[in-house]
Amino acid sequence: MPSPSPDSQFIIGVDLGGTNVVVSAMSLDGSRLFGALSEPTLAVEGAEAVVTRMARMVNATIETTMKDAGVARSAFIGVGIGAPGTVDREKGLVLAAPNLKWYDFPLIERMTALTGLPVRIDNDANCATYGEWWLGAARGGVNVIGVTIGTGVGGGIIIDRHVYHGSSDAAGEIGHITIDLNGRRCGCGNYGCLEAYASGSAIAERAREALHNDESSVLPTLVGGDLSRITAAVVYKAAGEGDALALEIVRDTARYLGAGLANLLNVFNPDVVVIAGGVTQAGEALFGPLRTEVRRRAFKSVSDRCQIVPGTLPGTAGVVGAVASFISQTTGRPPA
Amino acid sequence: MPSPSPDSQFIIGVDLGGTNVVVSAMSLDGSRLFGALSEPTLAVEGAEAVVTRMARMVNATIETTMKDAGVARSAFIGVGIGAPGTVDREKGLVLAAPNLKWYDFPLIERMTALTGLPVRIDNDANCATYGEWWLGAARGGVNVIGVTIGTGVGGGIIIDRHVYHGSSDAAGEIGHITIDLNGRRCGCGNYGCLEAYASGSAIAERAREALHNDESSVLPTLVGGDLSRITAAVVYKAAGEGDALALEIVRDTARYLGAGLANLLNVFNPDVVVIAGGVTQAGEALFGPLRTEVRRRAFKSVSDRCQIVPGTLPGTAGVVGAVASFISQTTGRPPA
Repeated sequence: MPSPSPDSQFIIGVDLGGTNVVVSAMSLDGSRLFGALSEPTLAVEGAEAVVTRMARMVNATIETTMKDAGVARSAFIGVGIGAPGTVDREKGLVLAAPNLKWYDFPLIERMTALTGLPVRIDNDANCATYGEWWLGAARGGVNVIGVTIGTGVGGGIIIDRHVYHGSSDAAGEIGHITIDLNGRRCGCGNYGCLEAYASGSAIAERAREALHNDESSVLPTLVGGDLSRITAAVVYKAAGEGDALALEIVRDTARYLGAGLANLLNVFNPDVVVIAGGVTQAGEALFGPLRTEVRRRAFKSVSDRCQIVPGTLPGTAGVVGAVASFISQTTGRPPA
Repeated sequence: MPSPSPDSQFIIGVDLGGTNVVVSAMSLDGSRLFGALSEPTLAVEGAEAVVTRMARMVNATIETTMKDAGVARSAFIGVGIGAPGTVDREKGLVLAAPNLKWYDFPLIERMTALTGLPVRIDNDANCATYGEWWLGAARGGVNVIGVTIGTGVGGGIIIDRHVYHGSSDAAGEIGHITIDLNGRRCGCGNYGCLEAYASGSAIAERAREALHNDESSVLPTLVGGDLSRITAAVVYKAAGEGDALALEIVRDTARYLGAGLANLLNVFNPDVVVIAGGVTQAGEALFGPLRTEVRRRAFKSVSDRCQIVPGTLPGTAGVVGAVASFISQTTGRPPA
């Protein structure tokens, strides 16, 4: 019997976030994506309620994909899940996901019981990077660094086309490289982490600080005078409108991020760095000075070899990467 | 015909340094090391003179090892060379070794012509790390970071038991991670690199600076009043004698190095960090506060997983690692 063709077998990708759960079905060869069901995570209801909801979303995605793709239930061979926080892939545990309040939760065991399918898990930032590598902006890369800038700064590392996990599944904490050993206190307890300067929350905070000495910025108007409502997105919007203070905040962000990336480039010598998350809304106002700063700081042979690009899968990198991680973990080979 | 046993086949390891060339013969299984012929490099005589001398040393080492080990010339299967600066392993070139003044030098081609043996090259800091991994302090490690502190700060990275080279053979520049983006200017052009704080030259310079405000230190006496003669080794000696200023310099070095290592630990999640070079002479005065600083800054799950140890092959890590690199490059497998 010939084996089924790779565009008629499917894996379910799940992106389990602190706010939403997103579920899609993808063909093994990456050529077909169905769904992108999204529901609130509602972590406050507890882990069991969340996995029950996830399993229901997986089963609903299977049902609709069976119709849309014209395939049988046997075409679905497994589930890949990107989970926030630290995971133990081998034991199938979410070790610590503070924003879900999950500790040592047996995610693989519970989801296998509820779906009847093989399940693999990985860290969500690793998945987002792997998704951009498989089908997005880092396609064709061999050694890739992914940086996702949202509320925090997440990251993933791909070495020789596989996600690099380190010695205890904890590698890739790009947000927690030190860029100023005497600098801002970071939420992690360390001082001067990249995240303390370049995360969405840090960008908003630096903008609020800068407003104390500036009366010409449009930022206060954009938030109806309530400075506590300034977010990174508001800063990017103002920068897009040419606001001088917002543009300075974006340039400073590029400078901090450039120092952090130069740091990583000198150690990893990657061929692609892909930057995802809300920060990419700042466009060339960020990427222009960022590339300049990296060239200024990193070895020439290293920065010449490396492209720094914005992600191209803003909504789906997580689910695509969860599928890629499932393939890599079950076959030992990267997805084709 | 049975294949020869791995303790009766030999590889020549060459550690090509800016000051000395060291050559040894090692059995394929790492159980037997012969020689450790050392001669001045005399780079001023030009590249051809240096390779001719190296080839003569390789042949002399083969001759004596044939006698000492009781083996035939056919027992010698290749030459591994650790070279300073950047290399292109595939093309066999030393791309840029400023302290030898070699640029795009065809080292593999020249040494093959002069020895008649297959030759492989790698960066010297990579080799030193690989040597400590194979037979030294990092033995048994899977993901390892090596830091060599001499005049500068060199480094090597081992991932899954192989040296990690990056996308253009330039990975592992541990000395050039940023620890303070507004800090000391580094020789590489960047600001706040680890090397600008923790290299042997930086340690000596920080000691000289500190002496301006201190009259109780024994350091001036140790150098006959000529402060320009203060080296890192003199600082370690004074610290060993309990000199307060020297101990403070060592503690500060531990703090800088700790910030840099925490940075790397959060990204790489290694199981071993091995620190080699003159700095290990400072012993627990360095390693005690260094481990404390790393624990303070890195994620607990990451620092708990990682041993930080001094190298145990001060004279031979380079040649041992050059042999290991030859084995890894020719077989695709790490040495046994």
